[in-house]
Order: sequence, then structure tokens, then C-alpha cells
Amino acid sequence: MEKQQMLINGERLKQIVDEFADYGRTENNGVTRLALSEVDIRVRKHFKRFCEGLGLTVKWDDMGNMYARLDGIENDKPPLVIGSHLDSVKKGGRFDGVLGVLTGLEVVQTLIDNDIKPKIPIVVANFTNEEGARFEPSMMASGVISGKFDKGKMLQSTDEHGLTFGEALKDSGFEGAKENRLVEATGLIELHIEQGPVLENESLDIGVVECVVGMCCYEIEVTGDSDHAGTTPMSMRKDALFATNSLINEIRDKMSKLDSELVYTIGRVNVSPNIHTVIPNKVVFSIEARHKEASVIKEVEDIIKGLSHSESKEVCEVKPTKLWDRDTVWFNDQLVESVEKSCKSLNYSYKRMPSGAGHDAQFIATYLPAAMVFVPSVNGKSHAEDELTSWEDCERGVNVVLQTVLELVGS
Amino acid sequence: MEKQQMLINGERLKQIVDEFADYGRTENNGVTRLALSEVDIRVRKHFKRFCEGLGLTVKWDDMGNMYARLDGIENDKPPLVIGSHLDSVKKGGRFDGVLGVLTGLEVVQTLIDNDIKPKIPIVVANFTNEEGARFEPSMMASGVISGKFDKGKMLQSTDEHGLTFGEALKDSGFEGAKENRLVEATGLIELHIEQGPVLENESLDIGVVECVVGMCCYEIEVTGDSDHAGTTPMSMRKDALFATNSLINEIRDKMSKLDSELVYTIGRVNVSPNIHTVIPNKVVFSIEARHKEASVIKEVEDIIKGLSHSESKEVCEVKPTKLWDRDTVWFNDQLVESVEKSCKSLNYSYKRMPSGAGHDAQFIATYLPAAMVFVPSVNGKSHAEDELTSWEDCERGVNVVLQTVLELVGS
Repeated sequence: MEKQQMLINGERLKQIVDEFADYGRTENNGVTRLALSEVDIRVRKHFKRFCEGLGLTVKWDDMGNMYARLDGIENDKPPLVIGSHLDSVKKGGRFDGVLGVLTGLEVVQTLIDNDIKPKIPIVVANFTNEEGARFEPSMMASGVISGKFDKGKMLQSTDEHGLTFGEALKDSGFEGAKENRLVEATGLIELHIEQGPVLENESLDIGVVECVVGMCCYEIEVTGDSDHAGTTPMSMRKDALFATNSLINEIRDKMSKLDSELVYTIGRVNVSPNIHTVIPNKVVFSIEARHKEASVIKEVEDIIKGLSHSESKEVCEVKPTKLWDRDTVWFNDQLVESVEKSCKSLNYSYKRMPSGAGHDAQFIATYLPAAMVFVPSVNGKSHAEDELTSWEDCERGVNVVLQTVLELVGS
Repeated sequence: MEKQQMLINGERLKQIVDEFADYGRTENNGVTRLALSEVDIRVRKHFKRFCEGLGLTVKWDDMGNMYARLDGIENDKPPLVIGSHLDSVKKGGRFDGVLGVLTGLEVVQTLIDNDIKPKIPIVVANFTNEEGARFEPSMMASGVISGKFDKGKMLQSTDEHGLTFGEALKDSGFEGAKENRLVEATGLIELHIEQGPVLENESLDIGVVECVVGMCCYEIEVTGDSDHAGTTPMSMRKDALFATNSLINEIRDKMSKLDSELVYTIGRVNVSPNIHTVIPNKVVFSIEARHKEASVIKEVEDIIKGLSHSESKEVCEVKPTKLWDRDTVWFNDQLVESVEKSCKSLNYSYKRMPSGAGHDAQFIATYLPAAMVFVPSVNGKSHAEDELTSWEDCERGVNVVLQTVLELVGS
């Protein structure tokens, strides 16, 4: 007889997700749990109690990142880490972040249920201030421990009331020792909701995340002349808005010929003077583009830079300025393969895919082996009260992580 | 020997324009003279003294419109009115409005110099608050006396400090009697700077204004979905900005096939949420179009209304809403012909043209014979400190008005 596959307890997972959603639950069944707010402090204490109840040891580091440790057989080996973040945006959902932390708790409970002591320690992690919704930037604490952000600057980041992150951290009671930071690990697995429509659209259970895509972000300034809308014939105008329109045509036309996985967005457009009787003399718009291949981002940048001497600018002046970029972060090959193998062994449908959004795992991946598991987002929604992942999808996602853990550290 | 043509005194005109520009002159040689401000009250008093010095009788009506009257031979006949406005926008120019009032003064002085008593009275008028820069709407006082605006509502219009027009008018000392309103006239002639580039561009001296063009103004709301810029593939987006771009393409394409004198402007564009990492879910933009023929405006409206079921909306919803419109106001045929004849007799180059901007004369024209004379604007500029009309052009314009006055009421 074939050995029966170990699975998590879906009912228990549902209960714990619901229990954690009580911390900051909104009228419309979403969650507001800004980093280091009163409710975030309460959920952290609840997380600590919960872990200690399971026999885990809980510590936190100098950025407030929390680590709940289950001992392994070889206790001096670097641990396997499962984690994400407990903070949310304002009026966010019940799944973004927290599901990746609770995945760790459910995996640990399943191991305990089955009397399995892992070969090496397992750590369930909660990274501080992933959202950056109260203190910018996002992924702040994973950024600090991976050396991406300067800790001193981060401590000075203020919320809308002028309170610094440093003060909020001290007041929270979760300012721990620097030596508690996550320095070594066998690997980090972060389960997260997809925050996009791809899995749902393709009726897939799981996304095996290969990378977090690189991107570039530009601001483009178009300058014309601000003449009277009634007295200036069309042929004598220097209309910055119409020039912008032609530039966007060129952008859409050229971008559509690049790789089909490229995404690009013109999200911010500011028109001056923005009065209905005055021809616009200035338009400033942002354009950001994301793709896993650096060569595609390079093509995007060539298109954007070319706008300044393109015919599309009509009689206006065009000045593109690069705001910032970031390279694609590739996850650890072996870990990604383990995740993929788990999907296969569980008979879940899946695809390898990039992450278009940023996650703590992308910073951790710069110094430790890391991988991510995506579960479907209904309508691709996140950062909204009606963010939803079905319980079946949550359960499948956590089973993938359990299976991967068993493969890596099962005794 | 041919009778020598009477001409105005160009040097004197220049001096008086310069003298009036002292009231509210800005650092950069522009003018700030908001309606019923302290400086507007001072220039009104100066205008009154100046007129009385020439032997004119000055009265004002219940909206503060000022009328300086030179008696004629037949003094009970309705007067010929020459006028415009003395108020300006903030950081406006030295010519817009004031030149039309000073035209009256220079014409009267020239008649006096030449011992000519006109057949009927001549009135030099200053209409209150043409600009609407302090109290909305523009052309307020000519609008009230022509029955276009409700006086009670206009008195309640407030400036940025909450002061009402009614209070400002009372405080100014220029709240006169309703019976002083301009009720009857043989005609009104308003000289004004063109505020557009046409005359300069075509190297013409004078614009013989036939009409103030009609217009329509719409607001168009484009609604899509606000998804994450990183996680939503291009094919699954409902991008309200890209839809707007296609709609503007359609507008430009279809409008360009209409009459070449049509002008249309998309001056105001508001994008939501206007964040560079979020696909815009809403764009609201204005479109206004002006043309003298109602049939062309009708074609424009058909194009705009058609957008709501056009392919250009892509996967978004489009809702056009009419904000307002106004019909073309045609000036008095005989008066326009008199102006044209004056240009010919002075050997000035000219063209018959519409006014794309609004003027007091368009309201007066609804109940009295009226006409307008345009002089060139350097670079088409107005409502700016560097607004400029050359002294030669100013002189030619006033000579056209003098010639027209002589033809109509010369003895």
C-alpha cells in the first residue's frame, strides 16, 4: 500500500486566518493593521503567545522582525524559514502577508500533529513593515537586514503625524537585539497571494515564483505653450496634451511589439495649468515597465529615451528623466524546483511565473536561498477589503509549503 | 486738393496708455487691476477726472458701469458708445480692455481738437468686472444690463476672501442708479487686442470682428479598473488612461476633418488615483470647441456623444456630460460694414474674422447694434505681463474707430 501523503488541516487554517483577521478587522471584512500601530502590536503579541503555546521560542531583532523557532534534530544547523508579514495597508485584505506567516504556523502544527521533528530548526518569520503604508519605504525591515536600506535612515522615516519609525519601534516593545537578525538559513519560503489575475484566469492552483521582475521608472516632461483656447487656431498651437497623446501612441505601439510578458503603466499624469479654457503648456507623466529579462527593460528604456527626438512630440519639447530602476531578483533554483516538485506530487495545477510586485523574499534572496509560492487572487485584487483567496486555494498553497518542508527537512 | 483725412494723435495715445498702466503696474511692466480693488477704484476716479477735464459728464449705473458723455448736436438722440473695461486679470497686460476705453477718450479728444461737435452724443464706457478674475463670472456687469445674468446672484458672487461683489461695489463708491444703465444707443464700438496670433501671423493691421463664436463644453468620464501595475498582464487591464488616449485619437482624427476654423481644446485632465504604480481606474477630461457656425458645433457634439459607444473606449465605460454651450453672437451688419469701410479709407490691411474669446460687446449686441475692432497681439499673447500691441497698431486701431465715428456721427 502506498504511503498516505501528509496534509495540513484546512479547517484549522481557516480558523486561524479568521482569528488573525480579528486584529484590525474593518466593517467590510477587510483589515487595517498598519505597521507598529496599536493593532499591529496586539497581533504581534498574539502571534508570540500562539507560537509559545506550540512550544516555539520567539525572538525579535533590532528592526522588530520576529522569529519563532521550532527546534530540529540538528539544532546548530541554519534553519528553514517560512514567513511573510503581518502588517497591512489601510483597508487592506485578510490574506496579503498574514497568510504567509500563518502558513508557517500551520506547517509547524502539522509536523507536531504527526510527531515529526524536523532535521534542522524551522523558523516562522514576521517581517516588520512590509507594506510601507505607514512608514515608507515598503519592505523596510527585510531591506535593512539584507543591507539594501540604511538602518539609520529607516529609523527616521515618519508617519503622517511626524512620529518616526524608530520611536514607534521602541514604543512597541518589539525592538530586539541585532544579533537576533536572520543571518543564516537553509532557505526561506514565502507564500503570498498573487495580487494579479493570472492564476485565476488560467484556472491554476499554484504559482511557482521564479523571480521578482526588474523594472524601470521614468518621468516625462512635455512642454508647449499656454495659449487661449478660443483665439489660437489649431495650426498655431503648441499643445502639450496633444503632444503627450501622440507620445503615448508611440509608446503603446512600440511596447506592444516587445515580449508579451512586459507590463508597463502610465499611472500619473499632471496637466498644467489644467483649466478647460487654456491650452496645456505642460504635461508631466510617469511610465514604469516591468519584465524579468534585463534585455527587455533595455529595449523599453531605448523607446523612452527616443521620445525626446521623436516626431510624436509634435512642436513641443520632451524631456524623459529616469526616476529609478531595479534588477530582476531570481530565486534559488533548487528551492524553486522543490516547490515545483511538491505541486506535482500533490497533483496541483501550477505554472512557473514571475512576481510583478515586490516582496520581502526578494531582499532575503540577495543573501540567502529563497523561493515563493503564489495562491490565486479572486479578480486579481489585493490591497482592498474584498481581497479574496478561496479556502481551498489557501489550503493547497500551505500543502505545497508543507510538502516542500517535508522534502527538505523531513526526518 | 483732396480733403486731408483726420487722424488721432498717436503720441498722446501712447502717453495715456502709459499713464493708465501706472494704476496697478507690476514689476515686469504688466498690470494687476482686479475689479473694484483699491487700484481699480483709483483708476476709475482717474478716468472720471480725465473725462470731466475734457468737459464730459460722467455717470455710473447700479452695476458700477461708467458712462462719460460728450454732448452732441441732437442731444436727445441715443448716443454712440465707445468702450470696453478697465479691470485686468492678476499679472495681466497694459492693453487688454483698457485700450478700448482709452480709444474713446482719444477719439473724443481728436473731435475736440478739430472743433467737431458730433451729431449725436458720444459715450465712453467702462464696463465693470469684465475679467471675472476676482468675482466670477466674467463679463458680469454687461451681462446684467443685457439681461443675461441675474443681478441678485451676481451681487452674491464672492472673492477669495469671502467678500461679495455687492459689498465691494458699495464700498467702492461706484454703485450708481439703475436708470443710468445703457439702455438705448445708436451703436457700441469696442476696440480690443486680438488675444490670438492670426493678425500678426497674416501681417494684417486690423481685424473687423463679425461675431463672437459659439461654443460647447463637455466633460468626459472614462471608467476602468484600478489594478496593480506589476501583477496585471496588459491583456487583462481596464486602463482608463489608455482608453482616454484612444478616445483623444478619435477626437483629433474626426475634428480635423471639420471646418479648418474650428478650434477645440482638452484643457483639463484628471487621472485617478494618479499613482505611478497603479493602473488608472478613472480619467475625467474637459473638451470645449468653438466655431461661428452652429452646424459645425452640432457636428462636434455628435462626435463627442458618439464616444460613449465607440471602439476607442476599449474595455472602459465612457460618459460624456454637456457642461454648457453658447450660441454665436453676430455683430450688427451696418456697423461691421462701417468699420470695414474705415479700414479701406485708411488703407489699412484687414480681415473679417470671428472673436474666439468673449467680450462685453457680445452681451450688448443682444439688444443694441454693436461691433468690434481687433488690433494685433504680439505672439498672440494676453492675460500675461508681456502682452503687447505695437504703438503703431494701437494708433491704427483707434484711427479706424475715429473714422467710423466720423462716418456715423460726424457733422
